[in-house]
Amino acid sequence: MSNPEAQGFKKISEETQSKPAQTNPYGPNPADFLSNVSKFQLIESTLREGEQFSNAFFSTEKKIEIAKALDDFGVDYIELTSPVASEQSRADCEAICKLGLKAKILTHIRCHMDDARVAVETGVDGVDVVIGTSSFLREYSHGKDMTYITNAAVEVIEFVKSHGIEIRFSSEDSFRSDIVDLLNIYKTVDKIGVNRVGIADTVGGANPRQVYDLVRTLKSVVHCDIECHFHNDTGCAIANAYTALEAGAKLIDVSVLGIGERNGITPLGGLMARMIAADREYVLSKYKLHKLRDLENLVAEAVQVNIPFNNPITGFCAFTHKAGIHSKAILANPSTYEILNPSDFGLTRYIHFAHRLTGWNAIKTRVDQLNLHLSDTQVKEVTAKIKKLADIRQLNIDDVDSIIKDYHADVQTPVVAPVADTKVDSLDISEEPETKKQKTA
Amino acid sequence: MSNPEAQGFKKISEETQSKPAQTNPYGPNPADFLSNVSKFQLIESTLREGEQFSNAFFSTEKKIEIAKALDDFGVDYIELTSPVASEQSRADCEAICKLGLKAKILTHIRCHMDDARVAVETGVDGVDVVIGTSSFLREYSHGKDMTYITNAAVEVIEFVKSHGIEIRFSSEDSFRSDIVDLLNIYKTVDKIGVNRVGIADTVGGANPRQVYDLVRTLKSVVHCDIECHFHNDTGCAIANAYTALEAGAKLIDVSVLGIGERNGITPLGGLMARMIAADREYVLSKYKLHKLRDLENLVAEAVQVNIPFNNPITGFCAFTHKAGIHSKAILANPSTYEILNPSDFGLTRYIHFAHRLTGWNAIKTRVDQLNLHLSDTQVKEVTAKIKKLADIRQLNIDDVDSIIKDYHADVQTPVVAPVADTKVDSLDISEEPETKKQKTA
Repeated sequence: MSNPEAQGFKKISEETQSKPAQTNPYGPNPADFLSNVSKFQLIESTLREGEQFSNAFFSTEKKIEIAKALDDFGVDYIELTSPVASEQSRADCEAICKLGLKAKILTHIRCHMDDARVAVETGVDGVDVVIGTSSFLREYSHGKDMTYITNAAVEVIEFVKSHGIEIRFSSEDSFRSDIVDLLNIYKTVDKIGVNRVGIADTVGGANPRQVYDLVRTLKSVVHCDIECHFHNDTGCAIANAYTALEAGAKLIDVSVLGIGERNGITPLGGLMARMIAADREYVLSKYKLHKLRDLENLVAEAVQVNIPFNNPITGFCAFTHKAGIHSKAILANPSTYEILNPSDFGLTRYIHFAHRLTGWNAIKTRVDQLNLHLSDTQVKEVTAKIKKLADIRQLNIDDVDSIIKDYHADVQTPVVAPVADTKVDSLDISEEPETKKQKTA
Repeated sequence: MSNPEAQGFKKISEETQSKPAQTNPYGPNPADFLSNVSKFQLIESTLREGEQFSNAFFSTEKKIEIAKALDDFGVDYIELTSPVASEQSRADCEAICKLGLKAKILTHIRCHMDDARVAVETGVDGVDVVIGTSSFLREYSHGKDMTYITNAAVEVIEFVKSHGIEIRFSSEDSFRSDIVDLLNIYKTVDKIGVNRVGIADTVGGANPRQVYDLVRTLKSVVHCDIECHFHNDTGCAIANAYTALEAGAKLIDVSVLGIGERNGITPLGGLMARMIAADREYVLSKYKLHKLRDLENLVAEAVQVNIPFNNPITGFCAFTHKAGIHSKAILANPSTYEILNPSDFGLTRYIHFAHRLTGWNAIKTRVDQLNLHLSDTQVKEVTAKIKKLADIRQLNIDDVDSIIKDYHADVQTPVVAPVADTKVDSLDISEEPETKKQKTA
C-alpha cells in the first residue's frame, strides 16, 4: 500500500484540479425551511463515546493531545467521559478544562444528582445528561418509570443551570421510546430552559426518513436546539446525521474515525465529506480540513487500529480512479467523477493506469508526463500492449513505463547497429527482456 | 486484536441471546406503499465494480472462487467486467457463465453496438448497459447529445433483447442529469421493453431524501423494475440503498466490502445489517448470513486489504460492549443495546470488562463464570479495585481474574499460616505482587 506512485498510480498536475460546478445539486433542499445544513455545529466525543471503544485506553497526556488537536481542527464542543467513571476520569476532565481551548468543554453524565454534583465542580462549560427512555432500558437498565425520569431530569437540570453552565437533556434509545413519553419530557425540559435536547439512536437501527420525521416533530414541540447522536451498526450514521440537520437539528455528535461502543458513531471525517458536498463554503470557513488526516492518524495510533481502506477522504484509494472510461473524463475535468476536491483536504488525486481496465487517455497522459511524443494511434497501440500484459499479471508503474519507453524507442528510432557503451536514459535494462517478450507475444 | 478473550472480553452464554421485540420500529414504513424493503434483490458487482478497486487483480481461478462463494451466499445476480475490457475479461466471463450457478450472470457494457455484439456471445443471462447522461459526462466523457444517446440505447436494447436475454439500461451520474432528459429516456427504453432501468450515483454525492424523490418520480414513469447503484464518497451508500427500496426500487448493486472505484459502493455486509434490522425473516430466508465473514475474508485477501476495524457485523468490535451501564443492560437483555443478533451471522457478543468504565454487573457475571461466590456488596468492592488499577494502566482478562480470585480468597478464607508446597489453582503467582499492591493501595 506504501507509495502509490510505485504501484502504478500517477499524481495529477495542479492545472487539472476540480473546477466547481455552476450549481450544486447536492446542496441544501430549499423546501427544508428549518434546515441547519449550512449552520450545523459539532459535538466531538472521541474523549467520551470514543473512550467506550473496545481498544481505547487514553492516558492523560494522550487526552490532552487529542483535545488540543480537536480544538485546532475547529470543533465547537469537546465531550469528555463522566467524572464519576473513575478518579482519573475526573482529574483528566479538570485538566482539560484548564487548557483554555476555544471549544467548549462538556461532560456526559447519568441523570442523577450524585453525578451532577461532581460534574459542575470540574470546570466544564456544560453538562450533557442522558437517561434511557425506551421500554427496553426502563425495564433492563435503570428500572424507572417516566414520572421518576421527569422528576430526576428537572432536579438535575435546575441544579446545573444554577451553576450558570450549559445543560443538555437527552433520551437514550429514542427511536424505540414511546413518542408521547418522549415529546412530554422534551417539552417539560424545554420549558425549564435546557440549552438543547438530544435524540440518540443508541442501538444504531434508525433510518434516514425515520430520523427526519422524529426531528421535524420534535422541532415543533421545543424552542431549544436539537442535538443528534447516531450509532453506525446498520451503516447509516452519516446519512442520519445529514437528514437530521435537514429536518432542523443543529448539533451532531461525532468522533474521530467514529470510534465508540460496538462499531461506533458518525465519524468526523465522513460527516465532513457529507457536509462539504452540501455546503463547501461553510465547512471550509469553520474547520481545518487539511488537518483531518493527522487527526485521524493520531487517534488511530492511540487506539491501535488502521485507517480503514475505504475510509471517506483519507482511505488510501478515496481519490484513486481506475477504469479507463473514468480516467479519461477525470483528466478532462475532475468534477466528472468527483464530488469532493482532494486539495480541500490537503490530498491529491491519482489515476491508476497499470491494469487491464486502463484506457488510452490515461496512457496518453503518462506518455506526456514521460516527455515522449506519440500519435493517438500509437498511444492506442501501446495501450493494447499494456492491457495484454496486465491480463497476465499485476503491473506496477515501472512495467508500464518500460513498455511505453521501449515502444517509443522502437517507433522513433531507425534500426541501426548497436553502438558499444551507449546507455539508454531512464530505461531499466533489467526490465528489457520482459518488454521484448511482450512485444513479440 | 487477536483473541478477544485474552484482552479482557468475555463470551456471553447462549441463554442471554437476544429475544425479539414485540414490534419492530425499524421495519418497513407502512406509508411506503411502493416499498420493496421486504422483497429486494441483490446485483453483486465484486467482479465488475470491485475489479475497478485500486488494489484488485483477480486471476481466473480467484474470479471463479468468488463467483461460487457469492452464489452460495445467495445473491440474485452476479455482474462481471465487460468482455471488451480485455481478452482475459472475455474468457473469464465465458468461464463463469459455464459454471451453472443459481445466480444469474450479467455483464456490464458501454451503450455501444461493438460492446453489445461481444457481450451477447459470452453466454450471460443479461447485459447491463450504461451511458453518462449528466452534462459533465456528455461534455467530458463521450461528447454525445441526448438524441444520440437515445438512438444508441434503442439500438443496443433491441439487439440484446433479440438474443432472448435480460437487458438493463442505466444512466450514469443520474443525480447531476437533467430530470426531463432522464425521464424521457427512461420512458422510451421502458416502452421498448427493458427488464429494468438503473439510477447511478456515480460520484457518491446523493443524499437519502434526494434518492427517495428521484426513485418515486421514476416509479411513476416506468413499469419495469428499478435498480440503484450508490458510491460511498460521502458515506451514504447504505442509507441511500435503503431509502431507494422504500421508494420502490427493487434491486441494489453491492460488492463485498464495498470495493470499487475510489472508496467504493454499497457494501454487501453493511446492506445486510441494514436490511435485517428492517425485515429479519426475509433476509434470513434468502441469504446465508453465517457465510458473510468467510466471503469478506476471501475478497479482502484477494485484494490485500484488512477488514476495517469498524466494519458493520464483522468488524472486530461490532458486538463488543464496554461501558458499565451498557454491559449491565446487555446482560439482562441483549436487545437493549443491540439491533442485530450476532448469532444470525454465526458470531458472538462480548462484554469488555477489563477497563475503568466497567461496572459491577459485568464483574458479577465474570465472578459467576469463575464459579466463585461473592455478595453484591463484595462484587462492588472488587469492582472498585479493578477500576482503580484500570485508571493506571491497560488491563487484560488475566489481571482482572487475578484481582477477583485474590479478593475471593481473602474474603472466604480465614487467615492461616501458609503450608509449604501448596499451590493455589488457576492463579498465576507472578501476578500476585501487583494484586497485593493494588489491595493495599
